[in-house]
Amino acid sequence: MEAFSDGVLAIIITIMVLELKVPHGESLVSLKPLLADFVSYILSFIYIGIYWNNHHHMMHAAHKVNGSVLWANAHLLFWLSLVPVATGWMGENHFAKVPVILYGVVMLAAGVAYYILAHCLTALHGKESTFAKALGSDRKGVLSVVFYFAGILLCFLHPLLGICVYVLVAVMWFIPDKRFEEKATTI
Amino acid sequence: MEAFSDGVLAIIITIMVLELKVPHGESLVSLKPLLADFVSYILSFIYIGIYWNNHHHMMHAAHKVNGSVLWANAHLLFWLSLVPVATGWMGENHFAKVPVILYGVVMLAAGVAYYILAHCLTALHGKESTFAKALGSDRKGVLSVVFYFAGILLCFLHPLLGICVYVLVAVMWFIPDKRFEEKATTI
Amino acid sequence: MEAFSDGVLAIIITIMVLELKVPHGESLVSLKPLLADFVSYILSFIYIGIYWNNHHHMMHAAHKVNGSVLWANAHLLFWLSLVPVATGWMGENHFAKVPVILYGVVMLAAGVAYYILAHCLTALHGKESTFAKALGSDRKGVLSVVFYFAGILLCFLHPLLGICVYVLVAVMWFIPDKRFEEKATTI
Amino acid sequence: MEAFSDGVLAIIITIMVLELKVPHGESLVSLKPLLADFVSYILSFIYIGIYWNNHHHMMHAAHKVNGSVLWANAHLLFWLSLVPVATGWMGENHFAKVPVILYGVVMLAAGVAYYILAHCLTALHGKESTFAKALGSDRKGVLSVVFYFAGILLCFLHPLLGICVYVLVAVMWFIPDKRFEEKATTI
Repeated sequence: MEAFSDGVLAIIITIMVLELKVPHGESLVSLKPLLADFVSYILSFIYIGIYWNNHHHMMHAAHKVNGSVLWANAHLLFWLSLVPVATGWMGENHFAKVPVILYGVVMLAAGVAYYILAHCLTALHGKESTFAKALGSDRKGVLSVVFYFAGILLCFLHPLLGICVYVLVAVMWFIPDKRFEEKATTI
Repeated sequence: MEAFSDGVLAIIITIMVLELKVPHGESLVSLKPLLADFVSYILSFIYIGIYWNNHHHMMHAAHKVNGSVLWANAHLLFWLSLVPVATGWMGENHFAKVPVILYGVVMLAAGVAYYILAHCLTALHGKESTFAKALGSDRKGVLSVVFYFAGILLCFLHPLLGICVYVLVAVMWFIPDKRFEEKATTI
Repeated sequence: MEAFSDGVLAIIITIMVLELKVPHGESLVSLKPLLADFVSYILSFIYIGIYWNNHHHMMHAAHKVNGSVLWANAHLLFWLSLVPVATGWMGENHFAKVPVILYGVVMLAAGVAYYILAHCLTALHGKESTFAKALGSDRKGVLSVVFYFAGILLCFLHPLLGICVYVLVAVMWFIPDKRFEEKATTI
Repeated sequence: MEAFSDGVLAIIITIMVLELKVPHGESLVSLKPLLADFVSYILSFIYIGIYWNNHHHMMHAAHKVNGSVLWANAHLLFWLSLVPVATGWMGENHFAKVPVILYGVVMLAAGVAYYILAHCLTALHGKESTFAKALGSDRKGVLSVVFYFAGILLCFLHPLLGICVYVLVAVMWFIPDKRFEEKATTI
């Protein structure tokens, strides 16, 4: 399952790289129109990196999978697969209201999907398992869903407020999931 | 072998994502022409998810492979690799008769290929093996081939009847393969 | 190393799938221009399948790798990565002389690369190793290089003669590498 | 982690293959405009091959990973993912000054990222570990960063001088990392 998920995440990054077109002209100035694409590429690369990092730690703490887990994982990958299109639309329209809201909706759905996957794994391993104890109350999972929702609402005031909240969630997740990390470092 | 199959399935999903183009215009209305592509993307994502899920369970129940199994697997991947083109043709022509029939033919061929793969594995493991007992009579494998064939025939009356039968097969497979699952949850 | 090679082979197949464009028009007739692309796709799929199958068996018989093996493997993947372009050029020009010769050159180079990889692995494992005994005299490896060379020369008489020899090599390899297979079936 | 990195490296090679378009016309002359693309493809294939080879050896010497290592690895992949665009820009402008400098900057950043990854792994395994002893003083890592920097400066005299220094670094790395190799040959 990890091989498949890794493959999909690697491909999502690829699709985003493919949007970085070779610029015309040989001067530094000809790189300027590429700037917006490049910034959005960095942002998305970090987001996908966060999911990959946490997904990796969670999968190493897990000892078994079943049908629900496989489908919860496919569900997460479905929403993550929409990240390149959502980012592209947001970037092309210079962070206009509707694209920023849609980007938040995709991120919110991915957050909910990650939460569902974590809880399918807990249900399978049992409430008293090492996995469940490692996951704990999953505060970050709940918080990020709440934050994305707040970000979407704030977009109706001004899209940049929404963006700030999205970045806040990224910063929060950027700190790797200490809960799993200590138990999953051997390779 | 699983890594290779996972890679191909991941790539099939990617090719389908690549068909979701970034829309022009920043309003919600500009998303409308993308709707048909999006619906067909969801459909194909579920179909590939079903094959991946069942393929995963079957491979975990298998203990060995040989040349026939590798070629039967390559044969299955060949037909699955045609899913994006078939879906795209069906979507672009708003479910017209010939594209829906062709979609059914690709799905029928993939169903036959899955059946062949299952039986190559049974032949290799022996009729008295745990694998053969786990596979059982493979009713679902036979049923889905029969259903796809019926769906293709019904298209000559009306393509939507064919679509309904295709969806029926998806629903039938959506329930994961209980036969293998209980024996293949440890990772 | 196998994961990387599997990934590259999976991607080569993908690039070939991407060349199969969604046809315009909803009738069976609109599929006609796609026919040449489809035939070339099937051919290339079989060729890549042959290399993947034999590569898989060889890697399972191997117990160790070193720098030479990694580079010999990268060298093989380099030539295989040119297969989609060579096939596309040959198909687009309806099997004209120069494209068919170039296709043969790519295949010859891939054959030589496979031979080098097999012999790097033999050198590493030792002449008395199980690997060397399993590989034997590698008659097929030598034969296919000779055949591709003969096919290229025959193209100067008529390109179809060259194609026939290429297909002959494919048929010869289609029979999986029995030498390795018996020793590498457990997964 | 290796599966993910392998996937990304495989995809980077794919993106470069995609830039090799099928030529129009059936004569040898029609291949001429493809020559520059082909040379740049070979160059980039070797560069990615070098990173893959050394990355493979380093990962096999490592026994554990943590959050810092995962992010250092993602950082390396980020810079390597820019190689296709940088190569394409350099090739399209026939090795003009600014594109050659930018290519050097991407290579310098990738070199720094590789150095950081190596030192994150050393910090995790401890100064007295087999890993740290295998890595040694990491002279090549430091040298290549210095060389890329020198190459960028020499571009201001003439871009070809810069290219020569870049090739020198490739030659230096082409010799596989003996330090790790002896300890990591079993598969």
